[in-house]
Amino acid sequence: MDGKCRNLTLMTDLYELTMMNGYYKLGTADRTAVFDVFFRQAGQISYAVAAGLEQVVEYIENLHFDAEDIDYLRREAGLTEECLDALRDFRFTGDIYSVPEGTIVFPNEPILIVRAPLAQAQLIEPALLNIVNHQTLIATKASKVKMSAGDAAVSEFGLRRAQGPDAGIYGARASVIGGCSGTSNVLAGQMFDIPIKGTMAHSWIMSFDSELEAFRKFAEIYPDNTLLLVDTYDTLRSGVPNAIKVFDELKAAGRKPVGIRLDSGDLAYLSKKARRMLDAAGHGDAIIFASCDLDENVIASLNQQGAKIDAYGVGTRLITSENMPSLGGVYKLAELEEDGVHVPKIKISDTQEKITNPGFKTLYRVYDGDGMAFADLIALDGEEFDLSRPLTLTHPTMRWKRTTLEKYTLRRLLTPVFEKGKFVGSRPALRDIAAYNRKEKSTFWDEYLRNVNPEIYKVDLSDGLYELKSRLIAEHTGGRQ
Amino acid sequence: MDGKCRNLTLMTDLYELTMMNGYYKLGTADRTAVFDVFFRQAGQISYAVAAGLEQVVEYIENLHFDAEDIDYLRREAGLTEECLDALRDFRFTGDIYSVPEGTIVFPNEPILIVRAPLAQAQLIEPALLNIVNHQTLIATKASKVKMSAGDAAVSEFGLRRAQGPDAGIYGARASVIGGCSGTSNVLAGQMFDIPIKGTMAHSWIMSFDSELEAFRKFAEIYPDNTLLLVDTYDTLRSGVPNAIKVFDELKAAGRKPVGIRLDSGDLAYLSKKARRMLDAAGHGDAIIFASCDLDENVIASLNQQGAKIDAYGVGTRLITSENMPSLGGVYKLAELEEDGVHVPKIKISDTQEKITNPGFKTLYRVYDGDGMAFADLIALDGEEFDLSRPLTLTHPTMRWKRTTLEKYTLRRLLTPVFEKGKFVGSRPALRDIAAYNRKEKSTFWDEYLRNVNPEIYKVDLSDGLYELKSRLIAEHTGGRQ
Repeated sequence: MDGKCRNLTLMTDLYELTMMNGYYKLGTADRTAVFDVFFRQAGQISYAVAAGLEQVVEYIENLHFDAEDIDYLRREAGLTEECLDALRDFRFTGDIYSVPEGTIVFPNEPILIVRAPLAQAQLIEPALLNIVNHQTLIATKASKVKMSAGDAAVSEFGLRRAQGPDAGIYGARASVIGGCSGTSNVLAGQMFDIPIKGTMAHSWIMSFDSELEAFRKFAEIYPDNTLLLVDTYDTLRSGVPNAIKVFDELKAAGRKPVGIRLDSGDLAYLSKKARRMLDAAGHGDAIIFASCDLDENVIASLNQQGAKIDAYGVGTRLITSENMPSLGGVYKLAELEEDGVHVPKIKISDTQEKITNPGFKTLYRVYDGDGMAFADLIALDGEEFDLSRPLTLTHPTMRWKRTTLEKYTLRRLLTPVFEKGKFVGSRPALRDIAAYNRKEKSTFWDEYLRNVNPEIYKVDLSDGLYELKSRLIAEHTGGRQ
Repeated sequence: MDGKCRNLTLMTDLYELTMMNGYYKLGTADRTAVFDVFFRQAGQISYAVAAGLEQVVEYIENLHFDAEDIDYLRREAGLTEECLDALRDFRFTGDIYSVPEGTIVFPNEPILIVRAPLAQAQLIEPALLNIVNHQTLIATKASKVKMSAGDAAVSEFGLRRAQGPDAGIYGARASVIGGCSGTSNVLAGQMFDIPIKGTMAHSWIMSFDSELEAFRKFAEIYPDNTLLLVDTYDTLRSGVPNAIKVFDELKAAGRKPVGIRLDSGDLAYLSKKARRMLDAAGHGDAIIFASCDLDENVIASLNQQGAKIDAYGVGTRLITSENMPSLGGVYKLAELEEDGVHVPKIKISDTQEKITNPGFKTLYRVYDGDGMAFADLIALDGEEFDLSRPLTLTHPTMRWKRTTLEKYTLRRLLTPVFEKGKFVGSRPALRDIAAYNRKEKSTFWDEYLRNVNPEIYKVDLSDGLYELKSRLIAEHTGGRQ
């Protein structure tokens, strides 16, 4: 915010540092730990679009404690000199595996795995969750909005209502991953090479003596970019007729008018009326762009009403994911080295869905013979699958629910991003991530991704993982209910 | 994010730049414009706690276009060389008036006013709204949470679910303005001198062979900071009994145990049971700290059920303002210089509440003879009030609703922050802003600030402003409905 350089290393929760301090004291800080990032089934989320990895990588690569940070922690966090000494030379030396950004992911499956010395793995938890939760949330929301919009382009317009600068900037980035094709946010456009969109606000209209003059002056300055905002005074009695006058003048001068923007009122009614007025005046190719409190539900309703809208600007409800403003991704211990042995760990809960999946795992997507996604399979790392034989998938808790595939392919979704602290991943351009997301979606039946009552996609546990999990549950509860 | 310095100057909407470019082209860029920032009545917002000014000041002071920004705008925004030349030397030269951070503010009243050359005033709109909307939203939410918590301390615990790093950092800052007394976010603690809070996560417990060992080791390392998380396996059968064992040992060693933390399950039931168990074991002064999907409504319900909770950690629902994740503050043109004359401007709407208040204005808080806030009064700048005579307040639309005060004082809420581009405000420490907010609240009857069905606080228009507004409405509509 202040133009000074940002170091997010201290952007962690205090308890991570008090635990680190304890691990240094107990001599267990360097034991290898495995943590899984996943989200649980949440009300409106049947699938998500993974996003944020590029910023996780930047965060990890930049991890370091400045001298003033060490002083601060000595003073305020009560860390021992031993721990502070370790922090002085701190850098991340672990492994990170992640699904690529833009991947379609599902509840309860690991979308990112950290395998690192325990102290390091703890430190990075909050920042990593913050970044992944936020961008995945917004990419998913954008995907839903775009799903409703169909072929109509959607631009992200929410900067002024975003929860702070980063929410505006990285929210715009995530929106593009999920399906938006432009943003109003110029800084996001510059940072991520996103097409930037926008023409005029009401204040432009109000700064002239009349709406007609405001339109004319705009058309003079931008003869090839005349998208005119028509709702400042009276959309159908003033805005659209004035726009038509200016479009006539532009055409007479050999230019091609772009269209009008509706930003208030009943968008279904106004767009249908405006479409007729534009068509009747010979401006059948002028587009109607709509904005104003839109989201996937409003857009679906507009479509159902036969609204004549060619493109959308979606603001507040996209950039804040208004009906569900957090994703709830968690970071759970799955394995810990004890005396040189890798011991799988489990968190027990009375709610079966909240019991974690133990061990160092991997995630496969199973495609059927037509190349369509059929199920995801969480397996233990190193578990072998004989691809020459049929694959039997089993429900994670109701084990009598089984399906066997004769023809299938397996794709490993988690790929290495860091190995021993060294970045080994790729840094695709945002447009390539967005293209990958579109390709991902094309491998899913619409039924899984539709916004209303989607079919639940299978996320199954391998036999090896199921057996391990059952054994650990029994050990912890002693068979007690 | 990437450790490079941040310049937020381009964090604006493209249409601001296309309009600026137009104003430069038309020679109107330097006409003085007045814009008001205000928010409208929104579902759950009867009042708000103003926040974000310090970051607005940093943003304004840092405004500048780098050479690469100019190149980007030439290439992608189609700005003319005349406009680009102006941007090269751009700095803010206008005036900004604002209520101090921590002020209790109400719908429809200007909480910040920009009076600046038109082009400058347009550029800063999105960043200014982004910052003020976000921090005011979270400070208001924190205020509501604290209102429910009463004397129990509330800490902000939401970093991992915040909408990006800034939302975590500045959300923690705003939470403290609204009433939180600590945060888990170490970076926010360092930046704003906020007490930082936290002890252990479930992963600490899981990293030991038993819960008891995990508690013991923690108590060994932090004998004076033993707040033990008791819900990893079984709260009442394992967690609390193990905590009591360790508390007994601590006491025997002459130390004072802090207490336990509940992070799942039925907090009302568990806290009552745990309280009895602690009391029966002689640990009546061990506190019970609760976290887990809390907000002002859950806390009110816990109180109503007689839960025995001494302090709260509030995460997701605070840091995202979950039930209302955007404030909806707007930035509306109120006056524009034309041929050297300051012309008041109005935006007409079919919805009476959406018609803006024209002119360069100021905002008074009217206190009654007991020093309690009675009403706010929006007036034209320069409008005189004879303080020796009774003050008559009139409803903004229903003008027959009038009240006359014999004894009263007026306080000007908007004070200068920038004058001709120079910072003339103050930079109070966060703790002083929080103290000021507590003082502000003490001047309001609880009825105005309560969370459920609050009494609507009066925000009235002066006679001068009412007459001006009526005249402009008549001019624009010609008396038409």
